[in-house]
Amino acid sequence: MQTLKQVDPQLAEKCITAVRMLTVDSVENAQAGHPGLPLGCAPIGYVLFDEVMKYNPKNPQWFNRDRFVLSAGHGVLLQYIMLHLVGYDSVQVDDLKSLCKWGSNCPGHPENMITGGIELTTGPLGQGTANAVGFAIAEKHLAARFNRPGHEIVNHYTYCLAGDGCLMEGISNEAGSIAGHLGLGKLIMFYDNNHNSIDGPTSITFDEDVCKRYEALGWHVQRVGDPDSHLDDLRQAIVRAKSVTDKPSFIQVDTTIGYGSSKQGTHKAHHGTFGAEEVEKIRERLHVDYKDPFTVPKEVIDHYRQNIDRGKQAEAEWNRALDRYQKEYPKEAQALNDLVNQRLSATWEDAIPDFSGEEKGDATRGWSQKVINAIADHLPGLIGGSADLATSNKLYLQAWGDFEKKTPAERNIRYGVREHAMAAISNGIALHRSGLIPFAGTFFVFTDYMRGAVRISALSHAGVIYICTHDSIGLGEDGPTHQPVEHLASFRAMPNMTVVRPGDAIEVAGAYKVAVKNRSGPTMIVLSRQKLSSAVVSGTSMEGVQQGGYTVSDNTEPGKVPDLIILATGAELELSEKAATKLREESNFAVRLVSMVCWELFEAQPQSYRDEVLPPECQARVSVEAGSKLGWREWVGPRGYIIAVDQFGASADYDTLFEKFGFSVDNIMNVAKQAIFAAV
Amino acid sequence: MQTLKQVDPQLAEKCITAVRMLTVDSVENAQAGHPGLPLGCAPIGYVLFDEVMKYNPKNPQWFNRDRFVLSAGHGVLLQYIMLHLVGYDSVQVDDLKSLCKWGSNCPGHPENMITGGIELTTGPLGQGTANAVGFAIAEKHLAARFNRPGHEIVNHYTYCLAGDGCLMEGISNEAGSIAGHLGLGKLIMFYDNNHNSIDGPTSITFDEDVCKRYEALGWHVQRVGDPDSHLDDLRQAIVRAKSVTDKPSFIQVDTTIGYGSSKQGTHKAHHGTFGAEEVEKIRERLHVDYKDPFTVPKEVIDHYRQNIDRGKQAEAEWNRALDRYQKEYPKEAQALNDLVNQRLSATWEDAIPDFSGEEKGDATRGWSQKVINAIADHLPGLIGGSADLATSNKLYLQAWGDFEKKTPAERNIRYGVREHAMAAISNGIALHRSGLIPFAGTFFVFTDYMRGAVRISALSHAGVIYICTHDSIGLGEDGPTHQPVEHLASFRAMPNMTVVRPGDAIEVAGAYKVAVKNRSGPTMIVLSRQKLSSAVVSGTSMEGVQQGGYTVSDNTEPGKVPDLIILATGAELELSEKAATKLREESNFAVRLVSMVCWELFEAQPQSYRDEVLPPECQARVSVEAGSKLGWREWVGPRGYIIAVDQFGASADYDTLFEKFGFSVDNIMNVAKQAIFAAV
Repeated sequence: MQTLKQVDPQLAEKCITAVRMLTVDSVENAQAGHPGLPLGCAPIGYVLFDEVMKYNPKNPQWFNRDRFVLSAGHGVLLQYIMLHLVGYDSVQVDDLKSLCKWGSNCPGHPENMITGGIELTTGPLGQGTANAVGFAIAEKHLAARFNRPGHEIVNHYTYCLAGDGCLMEGISNEAGSIAGHLGLGKLIMFYDNNHNSIDGPTSITFDEDVCKRYEALGWHVQRVGDPDSHLDDLRQAIVRAKSVTDKPSFIQVDTTIGYGSSKQGTHKAHHGTFGAEEVEKIRERLHVDYKDPFTVPKEVIDHYRQNIDRGKQAEAEWNRALDRYQKEYPKEAQALNDLVNQRLSATWEDAIPDFSGEEKGDATRGWSQKVINAIADHLPGLIGGSADLATSNKLYLQAWGDFEKKTPAERNIRYGVREHAMAAISNGIALHRSGLIPFAGTFFVFTDYMRGAVRISALSHAGVIYICTHDSIGLGEDGPTHQPVEHLASFRAMPNMTVVRPGDAIEVAGAYKVAVKNRSGPTMIVLSRQKLSSAVVSGTSMEGVQQGGYTVSDNTEPGKVPDLIILATGAELELSEKAATKLREESNFAVRLVSMVCWELFEAQPQSYRDEVLPPECQARVSVEAGSKLGWREWVGPRGYIIAVDQFGASADYDTLFEKFGFSVDNIMNVAKQAIFAAV
Repeated sequence: MQTLKQVDPQLAEKCITAVRMLTVDSVENAQAGHPGLPLGCAPIGYVLFDEVMKYNPKNPQWFNRDRFVLSAGHGVLLQYIMLHLVGYDSVQVDDLKSLCKWGSNCPGHPENMITGGIELTTGPLGQGTANAVGFAIAEKHLAARFNRPGHEIVNHYTYCLAGDGCLMEGISNEAGSIAGHLGLGKLIMFYDNNHNSIDGPTSITFDEDVCKRYEALGWHVQRVGDPDSHLDDLRQAIVRAKSVTDKPSFIQVDTTIGYGSSKQGTHKAHHGTFGAEEVEKIRERLHVDYKDPFTVPKEVIDHYRQNIDRGKQAEAEWNRALDRYQKEYPKEAQALNDLVNQRLSATWEDAIPDFSGEEKGDATRGWSQKVINAIADHLPGLIGGSADLATSNKLYLQAWGDFEKKTPAERNIRYGVREHAMAAISNGIALHRSGLIPFAGTFFVFTDYMRGAVRISALSHAGVIYICTHDSIGLGEDGPTHQPVEHLASFRAMPNMTVVRPGDAIEVAGAYKVAVKNRSGPTMIVLSRQKLSSAVVSGTSMEGVQQGGYTVSDNTEPGKVPDLIILATGAELELSEKAATKLREESNFAVRLVSMVCWELFEAQPQSYRDEVLPPECQARVSVEAGSKLGWREWVGPRGYIIAVDQFGASADYDTLFEKFGFSVDNIMNVAKQAIFAAV
C-alpha cells in the first residue's frame, strides 16, 4: 500500500457517502441527470481523488498533474462532486445546484472549455478510453524527450473510468489494442462493471469475457469485487497496476449502479430522478443523519480539503525539481517551457517552403509531404501519424522514427487501421495541453470512420491537424467506396471545423500555416491523390489562403465588373484556370478566377471583402468542385451554375472519371457560357 | 472430411495456381489493383468455391445459397476470379481484362449493384465482418420462422474473409461481440493472417493475440498454418467449424501475402503491379508452363466448371424440398415466397394510423413508436433494433420479443452500444435479399459513429430504415455532445440517402411510407425528443411528405403571390405555424408555410411543382430549422433569411435553448418582417 494514504475506514466510508448524497441532491435539484454511475463509482472517485491522484486544485492546469478521464461522460456528476469536495474553485455548491442549467459551470456532460479540472469533453461513449491513450502517449513521449537521470520532470499517470457502453464501442477496442502494443504502463483504466446499460442488464447483448479480451490486447488485467465491501482490494489493485510499467492496466470493478437507491443494481438506475420519498429512503440506506440537501459533514469536507495543501505542496515540489533541472539542463528546460506554454518557435513560418519558383507538377499530397517535413524541425510539438496509410497520405516525418514502446521520443505514430481511435487519441494529445500539435492522416472518405471523434475535436477546441488525401473521384481506380463526395459539405457544416482544400503547392503551404496557427479547433487539410500538371496556379498566395477566398487571376479592366466568376477549390483550381484562360483568349470574356480554398475563413472576412472578391454585380458564376453541390448556392448566387458530383463515383482512371463527371476544360467553358447568358 | 469433395491433390494445386496466375495477369493488364490478398488467399478461395460452398452460378440470386463476404474488399480479384472459374456469367475473361476500367463489370472494389455473385459492397475495412453477421442473423431468423421438422428450407452458411485491417477496425470487434452473444453457429470467418498491412509488417502496430480476443468474444477459434503446405488442415477446420452449431467460428489462416512474387510475405506485395520480368519469375516459381496471359489449363477449367451442374442440382433439390414444404405448410410457403420476392403486403399502408383526429401533443419519436408498431404486423420482413437506446428512441416492436440465441424468430435486435456494427449488420440484413426490412435506431448525433456503414447503405442500395431521435438542441440537458447540428446537412449531402424530418404525427406516418417503399437505398427518419404542443400542424399530409416539400397553410388570395414564405422542418414546423398565424393575424401578411420535410424528394419533383410551392416571385423567405444553415440558401434564395444553428448547442432545458438560439415565435416574426422588407 505504499502509495496510498492511511485513512480511517469509517471516515473513508463517510467520504464516499458524501459523494453519493451530493449526487442525489444534485439530480433532485436539477430534475435531470445520470445518478447511476456516481452512486456506483463513488468508491473509485473517492480513492482516486483523495488517496491516489496527484493534482493541485488551485491550479487545474499544473502541467505534471495526473489526468482523470471519465469516458462514461454521463456520470459527470461524479467528476463535479469530486472537484468540489477536494477544493477546485470551478465547482462550488451553487454550481452543483445549477447542474444542466443555461450558463452553468456544470453542464450535462463534461466540457473542458467550461469547467476547470475537467480535462476533456466526453459523453459519446468510448471516446475517453482513446483520449486517455492520447494523454498517456503525450506523457510517455515528453518524458522520453525531457527527463534526464535523476530528473523526472514529466511523470504522471492517466486514470480512465469506462463503462459497459464504452467497452461495447469499437473505438475502445482500437484504443485498447494500440495501448497494449505501445505498452503504456502509466495508463490505468477502471471498468465500471455494473452489469447494466440503458436498455437492460448487459446480459441481453454483452456477455463477452471483457477481462480476457483486454489480456489479449496486451493489458495487465485485475478484477476487483464489489468496492463497497472490498475497498482495500481496489487500493491494492491500483498499487499493483502502478508497479506494472510495461503494460497498461485494466481493473474491473464490480460496482453497483445506483447504489443506495431502490433501483440499485438495475438499468433503471442509469438516469432519472428520485422524488422526495425515495431520497429519504436513500438517506436511511446510506445511514445519513443529515437532512438538508447539499450538506457535507465537517469532518468529510475537512478531510477532502486537505488535498488543497497536498496539491500545492506537490506542485511546489515539482517546481523545485524543475529549478534543479533548469540549472543542469537549461536548453531542455527552455524547450519544455516553450512547449508547455504553447509558444510556437520564431522560425517555423520561415521554414515553410517557398514554392513560387517550383515547376514540376505533383499531387497536393506531395506538396504536403514537403511542407510538413520542412516545418517539423521548427515545431517540436508536432507529432502524429496515419491510419496505416503513411505512404499513401505521404505523411511521415522523415527525420524521426516511429513512436514505439522502446523509442517513445520519436514523433511518428503508427496508428494502424484504427481511424476512430486515431482521432480520439489526437484529441487527447492536443488536450494534454503540453504544446503538442497532433496530426492524423487517412483517406478523406475514411473520415466517416472517425467522425465521432472529429466532432469532439471541434467541440472541445482540440487543435488537431487532419491530413486527408485521396480527396475526390480523382483518386481513380479504387472506385466509389474510396471516393469522397459528400465529405467536404459534411465538414463545412460542422461548427468550429476549418476545412482547407488547397489547389497547388503554394496553397498547401498556406493550409499548413492556417492549421498550425489554429490551436483552438481542428483543421482538415484535404489533398489530391492525382498529380496536377504544374506546381503553381498563377496568382495563388499563402495570404489568400488565410482569407479563405480570393481572386487568383482576373482580366477584367479596372473598375469594371467581370463577365464571369469561376470559383474552385483543390485540384479543380488548375482545371478552372485552364478554362478561364481559354475563355479569356478565345471568347474575350472578362473572367475572374476565385479560389474558395477555405469557406470558414472566407465567411469570417468582412462583407466588404467578400463583396470585393465576389461582386454582387456579377451574377454569372460557376463553381467547380468535385464534391457535393450542397452549400455552393451561397457563393454562386441564384443564377449561378454548380459543377459538382452528386452521385457516387466509379472505378476508372482519373482522366476518364474527370471527363465523365464534367470536370473538363470544355465542360467548364460550356457551363460558363451558359452562366454568362443566364445572368444577362 | 464428410462435407468436402475428394479432389486429387495435384489438381487442387493447379486450381489454386490458376487463381494466382489470373490475379497476376489481371493486375498486369489493368496496371492497377491489389494482388497481395488473392495470391495469398487463393487456397481459401479454391476450397470455399470448389469444395465447400453451395451456390448456383447460373442463378446468383438463388435464395438458399451460401453467402461469401470479402471484408477485405481490396482483394476483390479473388472474388472475380473465383466467380469466373466456377462459371458465373457475370465475370468473363473480358471482364477480368477490363478490371478497374470505366463501365467494367469488375470495378476496383466489390459492388453488389454491378457484378452478379457479389453480395455486398466492401472495401472500407471491417464492414464485411459486420455485413456477414447480418447475413447470419437473417438466415437464423428466417430458419426459425419458416423451417419445420423435416423441412430445412432456410439453411445456408455465411463465410467471411477478413484481413488484419478489418480486425484492427473497431467495427469488427463490435460485430464479433454481438455475433458471439447471439451464437451465430453458421457464420464462419477466415482471418487472413498474413502479418502485413499497407505501411509495414503488422508488428509495427498490431501484435495483440487476435485468436484469444475472439475466444473472449465467444467464438470457436481454430488456427490453421500455412494453407499452401496444409490444405487439409484448412479443410478440416471448416468441417469442425460447421460441427460447432452454437458459436460463430474464427479460423486463423497463416497465408503468405503476394505468394509467388518476389515481394511475397512483405507489405510491398499488398498492391501494385509487377512488370514483365517479374511475371516470368512468378510463372517459374509457381511451376506454370503456360505463357499466354489469362490462360487457364483445360483440366482446371473443366474441374471448376463442374460447379455449374452441381449448383443447378443443389437448387433443383432445394426446389423439390420447397414443393414438399409447400404441400405440408402452404401458408408458411406463401409467406416465405412473398418475403423472398419482396412483395409488400396489400394491407400495410392501410395499417398506418390516421392521426388526423389526434389532439394530444407528443414528441415525433412518440408518433414513430405508434406507427412502427401499427405496421409491423403487416410487414413480416420488418426486423431491427436500437443501439442500447430502444427506450429513448421509442423503437421496440411490442408484439415481439428479443431476437436472441434461443429465440431467433423474434424481431427486436438488441444491438448494444455498437452503432457502427448495427448499421453494417443492417446492410447485411437488407442485402440478404430475402425481403427483410431492417430498421436501426440511435440518437441522431451518434450517426457519427456509424457513418462509414450508412454510406455503404446508400452506395450499395441497402433499404435500411434509420430511426434517429433527439434530433437537435431540442433534446435539452444532455448538452452539446448529444445535440446534432451539422447532421442534417451531412446526410443531405450523401448521394442516394433520403432524409425525412417530419413535423407532426401525420408527417411521421408519411415518413414511414417513404421509408418502407424505398427499398433501393436508406431512409433516415429524424425525430424530436421534445414534445410538441399538438399532434397535428393544420394542413400537413402524408401525400405532402411523398413530395418532399409542400404548402401546409397559406392565407394568400388565389392568384396572388404571398408576402412571405416560411420554410420549416421537424419540430420547428409547429413553431413556424404559430409565427405564421400571428403574422397573418397581427400584421395582415399573406404568409405561406411550407414543410420542407424531405429535400431529396422535393428535388426530385418537376421544376413546375417546385415553383408552385416556392414561387420565384416571392423572395421574402425565412427558413426555420434547428441545424446547420448549409444548403438552405438553395430554398430561401439570395434575399432570404435562415434561422439555423451554426454553433454547438448547450446544456439547458429545451425551452431555454430554443429561446436562446432564436427558435421562438417572436424571433421568427422579427426575422420574417426583415425578410419582407428586404425583398421589397
